[in-house]
Amino acid sequence: MKAHTEYLIFNTKEKIEFLNITDTIEGLITKSGVKEGLCLVSAMHITASVFVNDEEEGLKNDFKKWLEELVSDNKKYFHNLTGENNASAHLKRTIMGREAVLAVTKGKLDLGPWEQIFYGEFDGRRPKRVIVKITGE
Amino acid sequence: MKAHTEYLIFNTKEKIEFLNITDTIEGLITKSGVKEGLCLVSAMHITASVFVNDEEEGLKNDFKKWLEELVSDNKKYFHNLTGENNASAHLKRTIMGREAVLAVTKGKLDLGPWEQIFYGEFDGRRPKRVIVKITGE
Amino acid sequence: MKAHTEYLIFNTKEKIEFLNITDTIEGLITKSGVKEGLCLVSAMHITASVFVNDEEEGLKNDFKKWLEELVSDNKKYFHNLTGENNASAHLKRTIMGREAVLAVTKGKLDLGPWEQIFYGEFDGRRPKRVIVKITGE
Repeated sequence: MKAHTEYLIFNTKEKIEFLNITDTIEGLITKSGVKEGLCLVSAMHITASVFVNDEEEGLKNDFKKWLEELVSDNKKYFHNLTGENNASAHLKRTIMGREAVLAVTKGKLDLGPWEQIFYGEFDGRRPKRVIVKITGE
Repeated sequence: MKAHTEYLIFNTKEKIEFLNITDTIEGLITKSGVKEGLCLVSAMHITASVFVNDEEEGLKNDFKKWLEELVSDNKKYFHNLTGENNASAHLKRTIMGREAVLAVTKGKLDLGPWEQIFYGEFDGRRPKRVIVKITGE
Repeated sequence: MKAHTEYLIFNTKEKIEFLNITDTIEGLITKSGVKEGLCLVSAMHITASVFVNDEEEGLKNDFKKWLEELVSDNKKYFHNLTGENNASAHLKRTIMGREAVLAVTKGKLDLGPWEQIFYGEFDGRRPKRVIVKITGE
């Protein structure tokens, strides 16, 4: 069994930003030499997310607006009494998910026609890591 | 290491529908010959979900009602300005999750007593795929 | 390929409680002998969760308050007409997620600096199980 590990670093311009990382992950699978297996892509920070959805600008804005409805930035949070100001980012990332587990088939990401992999940042403007672990043969 | 890949196709009668696919997945694990490993079951469409919960009709209705509260079908969505009408299905699937990763032990799904695997459809009435990837030995 | 399986049992004092299980999982990885691979940690009950977030007391309280806003305990639920009273626990666990898939690198959990693994209980005060499946080499 092969296991290949990589760490990606993202430093977004905006506090909340969604980056399409599908091509990057595809490249790492080729580099790993794994033909059949699984690929874990996971945020290593707890105010960020890895999720699969559609590459469509309007939908990205719908996600941002909806997350603000479900998790107001302007409420009082216990976490923020510690000096932090990112409680809402922890909750938003929980809705979007920490990780995606992806199938690798014949050396490629085995995704549906519109599936794209995103790094979701909810407390950005600083460098944060994503782990990619590819296992298989 | 073995890796076994299958694609399931679902075409629901209703726009929103939850199908219990536990027996189907159990059958594919037997077919794969994998005794110890992991089984990824993932929607390949971004308006559908694979999730684990209870086979109870009332609860399924609770989920549908609750998802409509969290994600109104009748709001204005940027995504729908592109000619689509399924923005709310993208958001609902995000709540329910894209994939389930299941343990395979002694050649069987290693689930708790009430755990059942569901295909969750939020924009149905057309054929859509689910990937099942079983890896192990 | 190695595959190591363990079952943890939790019996919380409170109905809703979050237990940090990071050290327990780290110990099981050492015990498994797996140096490179994946570790699935999953609730085996459908009113409980395994999730990754921050070990900070205020944030745990923010999660509990927010979940109560998204999923009221006091609404009427179809599921509860069956004699159950835990419909809201099923929905809360859905927000928090069933499972975490974790990378194992050089024989250790490959987590970010603040990532901690939690067992999330939403209908406690009785024994419930979590499965840990570690696969790799």
